[in-house]
Amino acid sequence: MTPPSDAPERVSRALDTLQIELPSWGFSDTGTRFGKFLQPAAAATIDEKLGDAAEVHRLTGCCPTVAVHVLWDFPGGIASVDGVLQLAARAGVRIGSINPNLFEDQQYKHGSLANPDAEVRRAALAHLLDCVEIATRTGSRDISVWLADGSNYPGTAHIRRRRAWIEEALVEAHRRLARGQRLLVEYKPFEPAFYHTDVADWGMALLLARAAGPQARVLVDTGHHYQAQNIEQIVAWLLDEGMLGGFHFNDRRYADDDLTLGSIDPYQTFRIFHEIALFTAEHGAPADLAWMIDQSHNLKGKIEAMIQTVAIAQELAAKAALVDSQQLLEYQSRLALVEAEETLRRAFLTDVLPWLRDWRRRHGLPEDPLVAFRESGYLERITRERSGRRKAASSYA
Amino acid sequence: MTPPSDAPERVSRALDTLQIELPSWGFSDTGTRFGKFLQPAAAATIDEKLGDAAEVHRLTGCCPTVAVHVLWDFPGGIASVDGVLQLAARAGVRIGSINPNLFEDQQYKHGSLANPDAEVRRAALAHLLDCVEIATRTGSRDISVWLADGSNYPGTAHIRRRRAWIEEALVEAHRRLARGQRLLVEYKPFEPAFYHTDVADWGMALLLARAAGPQARVLVDTGHHYQAQNIEQIVAWLLDEGMLGGFHFNDRRYADDDLTLGSIDPYQTFRIFHEIALFTAEHGAPADLAWMIDQSHNLKGKIEAMIQTVAIAQELAAKAALVDSQQLLEYQSRLALVEAEETLRRAFLTDVLPWLRDWRRRHGLPEDPLVAFRESGYLERITRERSGRRKAASSYA
Amino acid sequence: MTPPSDAPERVSRALDTLQIELPSWGFSDTGTRFGKFLQPAAAATIDEKLGDAAEVHRLTGCCPTVAVHVLWDFPGGIASVDGVLQLAARAGVRIGSINPNLFEDQQYKHGSLANPDAEVRRAALAHLLDCVEIATRTGSRDISVWLADGSNYPGTAHIRRRRAWIEEALVEAHRRLARGQRLLVEYKPFEPAFYHTDVADWGMALLLARAAGPQARVLVDTGHHYQAQNIEQIVAWLLDEGMLGGFHFNDRRYADDDLTLGSIDPYQTFRIFHEIALFTAEHGAPADLAWMIDQSHNLKGKIEAMIQTVAIAQELAAKAALVDSQQLLEYQSRLALVEAEETLRRAFLTDVLPWLRDWRRRHGLPEDPLVAFRESGYLERITRERSGRRKAASSYA
Amino acid sequence: MTPPSDAPERVSRALDTLQIELPSWGFSDTGTRFGKFLQPAAAATIDEKLGDAAEVHRLTGCCPTVAVHVLWDFPGGIASVDGVLQLAARAGVRIGSINPNLFEDQQYKHGSLANPDAEVRRAALAHLLDCVEIATRTGSRDISVWLADGSNYPGTAHIRRRRAWIEEALVEAHRRLARGQRLLVEYKPFEPAFYHTDVADWGMALLLARAAGPQARVLVDTGHHYQAQNIEQIVAWLLDEGMLGGFHFNDRRYADDDLTLGSIDPYQTFRIFHEIALFTAEHGAPADLAWMIDQSHNLKGKIEAMIQTVAIAQELAAKAALVDSQQLLEYQSRLALVEAEETLRRAFLTDVLPWLRDWRRRHGLPEDPLVAFRESGYLERITRERSGRRKAASSYA
Repeated sequence: MTPPSDAPERVSRALDTLQIELPSWGFSDTGTRFGKFLQPAAAATIDEKLGDAAEVHRLTGCCPTVAVHVLWDFPGGIASVDGVLQLAARAGVRIGSINPNLFEDQQYKHGSLANPDAEVRRAALAHLLDCVEIATRTGSRDISVWLADGSNYPGTAHIRRRRAWIEEALVEAHRRLARGQRLLVEYKPFEPAFYHTDVADWGMALLLARAAGPQARVLVDTGHHYQAQNIEQIVAWLLDEGMLGGFHFNDRRYADDDLTLGSIDPYQTFRIFHEIALFTAEHGAPADLAWMIDQSHNLKGKIEAMIQTVAIAQELAAKAALVDSQQLLEYQSRLALVEAEETLRRAFLTDVLPWLRDWRRRHGLPEDPLVAFRESGYLERITRERSGRRKAASSYA
Repeated sequence: MTPPSDAPERVSRALDTLQIELPSWGFSDTGTRFGKFLQPAAAATIDEKLGDAAEVHRLTGCCPTVAVHVLWDFPGGIASVDGVLQLAARAGVRIGSINPNLFEDQQYKHGSLANPDAEVRRAALAHLLDCVEIATRTGSRDISVWLADGSNYPGTAHIRRRRAWIEEALVEAHRRLARGQRLLVEYKPFEPAFYHTDVADWGMALLLARAAGPQARVLVDTGHHYQAQNIEQIVAWLLDEGMLGGFHFNDRRYADDDLTLGSIDPYQTFRIFHEIALFTAEHGAPADLAWMIDQSHNLKGKIEAMIQTVAIAQELAAKAALVDSQQLLEYQSRLALVEAEETLRRAFLTDVLPWLRDWRRRHGLPEDPLVAFRESGYLERITRERSGRRKAASSYA
Repeated sequence: MTPPSDAPERVSRALDTLQIELPSWGFSDTGTRFGKFLQPAAAATIDEKLGDAAEVHRLTGCCPTVAVHVLWDFPGGIASVDGVLQLAARAGVRIGSINPNLFEDQQYKHGSLANPDAEVRRAALAHLLDCVEIATRTGSRDISVWLADGSNYPGTAHIRRRRAWIEEALVEAHRRLARGQRLLVEYKPFEPAFYHTDVADWGMALLLARAAGPQARVLVDTGHHYQAQNIEQIVAWLLDEGMLGGFHFNDRRYADDDLTLGSIDPYQTFRIFHEIALFTAEHGAPADLAWMIDQSHNLKGKIEAMIQTVAIAQELAAKAALVDSQQLLEYQSRLALVEAEETLRRAFLTDVLPWLRDWRRRHGLPEDPLVAFRESGYLERITRERSGRRKAASSYA
Repeated sequence: MTPPSDAPERVSRALDTLQIELPSWGFSDTGTRFGKFLQPAAAATIDEKLGDAAEVHRLTGCCPTVAVHVLWDFPGGIASVDGVLQLAARAGVRIGSINPNLFEDQQYKHGSLANPDAEVRRAALAHLLDCVEIATRTGSRDISVWLADGSNYPGTAHIRRRRAWIEEALVEAHRRLARGQRLLVEYKPFEPAFYHTDVADWGMALLLARAAGPQARVLVDTGHHYQAQNIEQIVAWLLDEGMLGGFHFNDRRYADDDLTLGSIDPYQTFRIFHEIALFTAEHGAPADLAWMIDQSHNLKGKIEAMIQTVAIAQELAAKAALVDSQQLLEYQSRLALVEAEETLRRAFLTDVLPWLRDWRRRHGLPEDPLVAFRESGYLERITRERSGRRKAASSYA
């Protein structure tokens, strides 16, 4: 089996439509519950984060937007919007999806939208509505709602009552959406709550999104699944339902490890791209999805890791574009199992790097963005500028 | 914390409404892929299975119906119905839920309702419609649809197309339902298909049941979940949606091990009973659920294991009945975590055996059905009668 | 099946020998990577931690020692020992096992004893040797070595080389042990390293402990296992090898959730106690084990949760003491499966609370330590004393 | 990063030393507990199995030996040896590892070497000793011991006693080994026993192999692990201990699915090859390992699937050979994480097919063995010859 003759065009088309959103929080220091890992070049302000994101975009050409975290990036809430917009314009990126923060304040320790205390629920909803307003002002399409809500011990939470509270709030938030905006509902099976998480799986997210209104969709974080769960099947069903809103990209081995996309199981990531490419091929138009990175690079250099992630996503999307869906369907229909499997496998194993480099060259981009970054001197410059202003590390067991 | 003063009444009420359906296949020889385990007393005919089930009912007083497997129990299909009904009447049990067999015939090796071959799909649908007809004739309320459909390797199956075929067939089957009948859609994450199972989780079962029609519900097999999945939360959501149809009871450690209910993690089973009891308490009336055993006792004596299972289910349901839901809600509302948890935990740890025995005595049943069974001589009698007609064991690696 | 006639004596003996060590860090604020959860009554100094531990001991009578974390509790290292000993004496508790901290300092971000940088390895070893010295001065028997060492991405670490470095250091530490002291080697499958953890399972810990020397043993943290792993079997094998050193007690649903012992799967915890009781019964003398709590009560009150944990441990140990090991062996030998299983199950389901209360009363302890704690006014007092000195919470995504 | 300049030589050397053993049972009908899947071309006799294996060897050139299952392939035990040897010689293959069958006979339903009944243990040992004798007569080096022993319910088995019985038997079997022979001890976490498996993990297998004697080693079946377990780390430790005997190759998603090697997670399989290649590079000589396929192709054509597996193994081994271990070590040593990871990743993503084809051509083999097989007419011939002698399929729920 050789690559299809139109492989270069297929790869090129796939890359043309793949725009990946960078997370502002991916450029600052992160850690585990055992302590934060410090990097001298880590960004500490929204200005620095946008600057670093812009550098990734400059080198890769496919990351024009930056996802932001209200609270970390808009400390003044709505009042911070204008300042952030100016910083973004200066850096040369746009503000992307808006991420509420409904987990950090101590009042949310027993839940935010699902808190048994009506006062806390009101505060959480107010924050969520602020986020919709911020999204409107930043021109962002998506508000990504991840709830840390849940409980640690059997009997301590009323599962159905909490669900109703969440639904109520999402309906309210949906009502405020501007035309074209979307409410993305994320799910996660565990952590930071350990016994029960209020929005634990795609089925729960789907029911909540349906209840919220027609502009709500489900957000799939690739690390938020049970072990052995078939993620590409969930993606296929959500596409089928018209309910897939987008992705938070990362990889993991055991839990929600937030590792680099494709670093542990690249074939699984490829299969997700394949299901989307197949859907697109069958429907004539690409599914309208938000591709966002949500990783936590504790040890790798922040910018370096982000560039690597973007390159991996491009590589895997390009491989998926090589699958001849007509041919595949024909094999599937006559139960030619090995031929069908090899069609997928060979696409995955094809070296697409030459075409990827070619695409970059044609777009005036460095052929190897990682090498270009290392040669750019950017890291050395920000390391110099940002060191010295380090505060002591905090940690807890 | 002492048991509530009305504990005996609570237990009594819980036991009065708990009727458990026995599976005809639970009395015959079973095994693993490494070989079948033979027991001299295992039932081989529907007559023997009904007789064994009746013996369990005689000793426990709460198992008046028997789930049947079309193909194994109705080898002649619809034509076998009258004979089976007579045997049941003679044994003193009723025919309960009807289970299609859409996995054993070689034509189903690549799927039944989801097979890419339209001819096979038609045969599968015909069998399903036969099952609805059989249910009508046997006066059974539920048709339980478990599909073994799926694929073993990435790329070999078209996930969305297969889903559409299943949906189409369920709609057709639903159309044939008599008033009051229900179509129960079961889900399972893996096995016998290993890469993808067409109806893999409760979310998929829910969407299919909704698409099928208003008399379709979801069937929860307790062993059909990912490791660490919170089953009682799924139960709570399905209750909330009005979509829980019933259970296939069993327990497991790693996969779908089909072990005795509560034998590995009794607290989890208790929590499922608790969520149902809580829902019932809040809605004034019990949720209308089918409680079915679906276990595979490879080594334990078949009838003995069934009696043990029924006793465990009663014990756990009785414990769940002890939870004071008003008190629990009050603790949950003011975030008295330890008090709320202890309310559940203490109910679980309360010894309900005296009340359970009392209930049995009042219903003219033996206080300890296992002991009564051992003293009854039933096992010795069927062992004598059934031995000698053993055929050679089959197995495969 | 009724409890054995000598049940009260069995329970009493089991409780007499069960001494549980409290962790100093269990009284201070903890959290997840998403943020620390603050409690006004949380202990901040070693003085406060020892005071809180003493309160637990006062109410339960079985927690005379406190595990300490060098770095958090001995900020001056060896120089802090005398001060800590005085505080402990004043509080009325003794210093128990010594826990090195080889994960918090930034120099350990790529490993401690297994760091590729020889300089860092030297620093880590020096800290470990300090801990041995501290143990000698505090009169502690055990040094518990948990290594956070590992890597996040395939290819970034040399697995065998790192193992050799760890072995080398443990040999060196073992050489410094005083007579009667023990080096406990802990294992953990993941977190904070995600791709590979240098000491990932009991097999690795066993090989390292054997290599370290005759005074090294394996430490089993109940939360450090793969899903579905049979922990009691590991315990049985380690007992058989004479290599079980003790436990870090906690429970979990998905990962290393550090929840209250027995809060999620009490039957599993019971089975661990059972394997130890069985070993003890067969060998005439109890296995010499350290029972330590290692939990992270983010939401429950710290002291309240610790008292609850101790009570649960006592309850489960008392239940395990009810198993008639002779009878069990007899059932196992003649393959009376249901009888053998019911022997275990009935012991687990027996209400041991009356005997437990009796034991407490006879030892001059409050019958219900949780109630006694709530009535004591201790919590209100420390809340008053400790509030006001709160520093701002830190967190990171 | 481009492939090393000596890539062709590296690939060639890797392929020269990779000899893969085919399992006789891989050519006959298999299934799941839900039923056997029948293929008209499946082999039914040892003659047919050896013939099919020889066909795979003819097309791939690297499968000169066939693993056999005593009982299935030597129905007369030792008496069958001469006949089998003649059939093998005629087919052009050699007899490889000898696999006892200690699970199929009904007497083993409660265990074989670990059965509480001394009579059964004696029978099991006798079978094992027969296998050693058969190995001596067939000139086989390895006896692969997989025990299905375990229990389904807590309390029903005495874990330590059973371990002692297994150890005793292995010591006895080891005593009969001829010089150069090896006893391989396999482990498996679950199935067909569900609560506890007597040899559950690599740690247990290692202790048993050490106890058995110096010619015993551990056998790693890639599908016999907990979810998320790092298999390549286990491989590295076993190599380090000098205790790795070889592999049973397959892949899986959830349990022990026995799917085609690398079909689900090819990167993990590659990393196993990498750890071995790294060990080999550092020690100057290849580790002496048995590479055996142990898969169950229920749906794929048996011979086709076997050829595909061999090709995948060659491809992944060739990729692993491309890793520059000196360069990797240098990156690891200076903590150049992304560079180290990319070294591995780029080797994995390199298209080695041209070199693999070149190697085949140079050895007079077809460049694409799958295509060659399809064109050979072999399948059509055996389908013709073997159909008609089909017996009815058996199955059980």
